[in-house]
Amino acid sequence: ACNISDIAAMGGIPKFAVVSIGLPSKTNVTWAKDLYRGMEAVCRKFGVAIVGGDTVKSEKIVINVALTGEADAKQVVLRSGAKPGDIIFVTGKLGHSLKSGRHLKPNPRVKEAQYLVKNFKINSMIDVSDGLAADLGHILEKSNVGAILDADAIPLYPDAKLDNALYDGEDYELVFTLGEKEAKRLVSSGFYPIGIIIKAPRSLFLCKPDGRIVKIKPKGYQHF
Amino acid sequence: ACNISDIAAMGGIPKFAVVSIGLPSKTNVTWAKDLYRGMEAVCRKFGVAIVGGDTVKSEKIVINVALTGEADAKQVVLRSGAKPGDIIFVTGKLGHSLKSGRHLKPNPRVKEAQYLVKNFKINSMIDVSDGLAADLGHILEKSNVGAILDADAIPLYPDAKLDNALYDGEDYELVFTLGEKEAKRLVSSGFYPIGIIIKAPRSLFLCKPDGRIVKIKPKGYQHF
Repeated sequence: ACNISDIAAMGGIPKFAVVSIGLPSKTNVTWAKDLYRGMEAVCRKFGVAIVGGDTVKSEKIVINVALTGEADAKQVVLRSGAKPGDIIFVTGKLGHSLKSGRHLKPNPRVKEAQYLVKNFKINSMIDVSDGLAADLGHILEKSNVGAILDADAIPLYPDAKLDNALYDGEDYELVFTLGEKEAKRLVSSGFYPIGIIIKAPRSLFLCKPDGRIVKIKPKGYQHF
Repeated sequence: ACNISDIAAMGGIPKFAVVSIGLPSKTNVTWAKDLYRGMEAVCRKFGVAIVGGDTVKSEKIVINVALTGEADAKQVVLRSGAKPGDIIFVTGKLGHSLKSGRHLKPNPRVKEAQYLVKNFKINSMIDVSDGLAADLGHILEKSNVGAILDADAIPLYPDAKLDNALYDGEDYELVFTLGEKEAKRLVSSGFYPIGIIIKAPRSLFLCKPDGRIVKIKPKGYQHF
């Protein structure tokens, strides 16, 4: 599902998966079959075919999925296209996924991304997998721009706090930016405007409910 | 290199690699860079571009490479196409790769495979990665045929014995089968005819130097 989300975030349609699995000798066969069944269920839902891969013996369980996708060359969206003045949107509510268990049933936004790239000029896009601050941070870095987020505008799950949205991972909503004129056409789309892109390179600011603007770090879940 | 060999064995040209690496926190950075340099060197040699992948923390070192390739639909060669009467060829000498260290510098036979599929009707093909008996065994299984190998005809490295060729892995030469008429055109090609395909399903026989024919098991290096 997280590979599908990565493809969605570039405006692509997921196609073929190659799955490599390393298992200890003592692994329960039913467990291994259930793992494949789970992957097949997600793949079926998104029209992905598992076309190959490898199985090897390993000391611990290792799972690797490589996924190809297709995109209209004109509709590919990169992290590097954000422009000062762009409005920043998110496709859905954020936060608290680790606590709620929602991260165990990620729902990649392929349909939403396809709707966006086919009907709007999306300048940059990424999926929220390491937290909004970190993933928007990637856009800021690659586009050499900054951003101001409106704390009040960031949509949260009822059980979530703002810090969960900013710094927790595994949400799988999409963050995207587009010019102001294009953004106006998005008003009644159900997507959430949460901030604007500014010139200050790689700087992320948060406009707090009391009006104060504070600089925050574009960091999130750290893998290492 | 072993992924490139797999693509070659289907008559394909390797194109794009996705490399995922799991490393313990304490891994030496120079070591990790050298690993990538090594992969880049092989990829450059065969015109492959490393286009993506992932890096994660893991307890042990884990490396996964997924590789895409392109093939003319008419020139794709499967394991399932061997026919009784086909002559079995191998592209080069076999055996003793584990002892000699040759398996550390595998040389995938992309050029040879391309020459074969463009100029001959190849019925089935596979690369020798787990030993001739095991890999030819895959062709026998998928094609539902048998084979008789001529022990004297199997080309060996000077330091190799027949059992090394039959049961040791990591040789990366190609084994392929083609009809008798086509095979005659291959006589002066430098490839080695080593046996014939017969009807008996999934049965592998070895014709010994003294003329005895013995049944052997289509087994080789066991991963589990």
